[in-house]
Amino acid sequence: MKILKSQIRDVKIGNNVTIIEPSNLYECILEDNVFVGPFCEIQRDVKIGANTRIQSHTFICELVTIGKNCFIGHGVMFINDLFKEGKPANGDKSKWKETIIEDDVSIGSNATILPVRICSNVVIGAGSVVTKDITTPGIYAGNPAKFLRKIDD
Amino acid sequence: MKILKSQIRDVKIGNNVTIIEPSNLYECILEDNVFVGPFCEIQRDVKIGANTRIQSHTFICELVTIGKNCFIGHGVMFINDLFKEGKPANGDKSKWKETIIEDDVSIGSNATILPVRICSNVVIGAGSVVTKDITTPGIYAGNPAKFLRKIDD
Amino acid sequence: MKILKSQIRDVKIGNNVTIIEPSNLYECILEDNVFVGPFCEIQRDVKIGANTRIQSHTFICELVTIGKNCFIGHGVMFINDLFKEGKPANGDKSKWKETIIEDDVSIGSNATILPVRICSNVVIGAGSVVTKDITTPGIYAGNPAKFLRKIDD
Repeated sequence: MKILKSQIRDVKIGNNVTIIEPSNLYECILEDNVFVGPFCEIQRDVKIGANTRIQSHTFICELVTIGKNCFIGHGVMFINDLFKEGKPANGDKSKWKETIIEDDVSIGSNATILPVRICSNVVIGAGSVVTKDITTPGIYAGNPAKFLRKIDD
Repeated sequence: MKILKSQIRDVKIGNNVTIIEPSNLYECILEDNVFVGPFCEIQRDVKIGANTRIQSHTFICELVTIGKNCFIGHGVMFINDLFKEGKPANGDKSKWKETIIEDDVSIGSNATILPVRICSNVVIGAGSVVTKDITTPGIYAGNPAKFLRKIDD
Repeated sequence: MKILKSQIRDVKIGNNVTIIEPSNLYECILEDNVFVGPFCEIQRDVKIGANTRIQSHTFICELVTIGKNCFIGHGVMFINDLFKEGKPANGDKSKWKETIIEDDVSIGSNATILPVRICSNVVIGAGSVVTKDITTPGIYAGNPAKFLRKIDD
């Protein structure tokens, strides 16, 4: 049996970054002023932009890029493997898909984010499942997430 | 970089309370016989009533009050910030809203609870998203959660 | 106050098993080549078949049996207590129900699995809530989960 420990390993870290342990972060990039709450995992090659907050219990997988000034709620799960052939890609990364979250995006707690692109100035409601790209700013919610309304000026 | 550790800090604790570490609890109140499973976070000013069980992986934010004899399942996420202006309130607590869970309420695993009041003797189905106050006892489920049926006598 | 620590206790472990701490595993069976990510809880009498992967943040309760070559995503919650009388069974295990996951089943992240049987060669979409037995291979998703389509050959 091999028992490994969650750790903060080989992370490229900007100024004024805060991380609450235990969390499992490795080979990712956290820009200035990023906050990461407890019980998070952030995998290799993930990039988190400046001033973005990653709340507790959140999992961010390889091939996810998150912009600046974003808020990722508690228990948010990102996905890179769509089980396209009815099963996991089993480490064949050519079958994984990427997720791009642009700037000023707020994702509510317990949301699930399939491999998509979400444009800037979007709010995702708590508990939503995002299955398609979002290209228009606004508020989206539900399973699957649909456009609810514009953000009030 | 600032690395902080999850801890049990400045918690007001009744008799016969059990907590499984790692969990991150601070400045909250746990009354007699409360149980808190592993991988939980309970924030400041939260009050958990006597005999209530908080299961693993659950996050309870500021401005949440939970009554007696409640069961909060695994991976339940509470919310106090509705991103009303299309983004987080960013620490401006005047924009947060409170949640009141009365007595004898059972909340299923992976449920998401927006800022609401839930009256006594309610069951929330697993995986539900509660978006509105619940003022009548019964069983509620779905996203958004709707009334399913009365509790059998 | 009683503070207990998550641990790996009295687990029957096959060859080449990997576990990432912190996780809370006790009195369960992990067959050959099982992987368990961080922030997981696996309770007593659970059996996980050979080559199955349990990803981070997942909770597997008593009375769950998982077959071989399965993939259980991140933040998946299993359930054994349906609150049939409007409240938890409170330790009366005669009121709990079992879950059987057969072989080659892939369950997406943030899914919620009520006490059901899922046959071999099934994919459950991320964020789904499975409320009924699944007896036909295929892809299922939604809350509640419904048949989407066959798996492509």
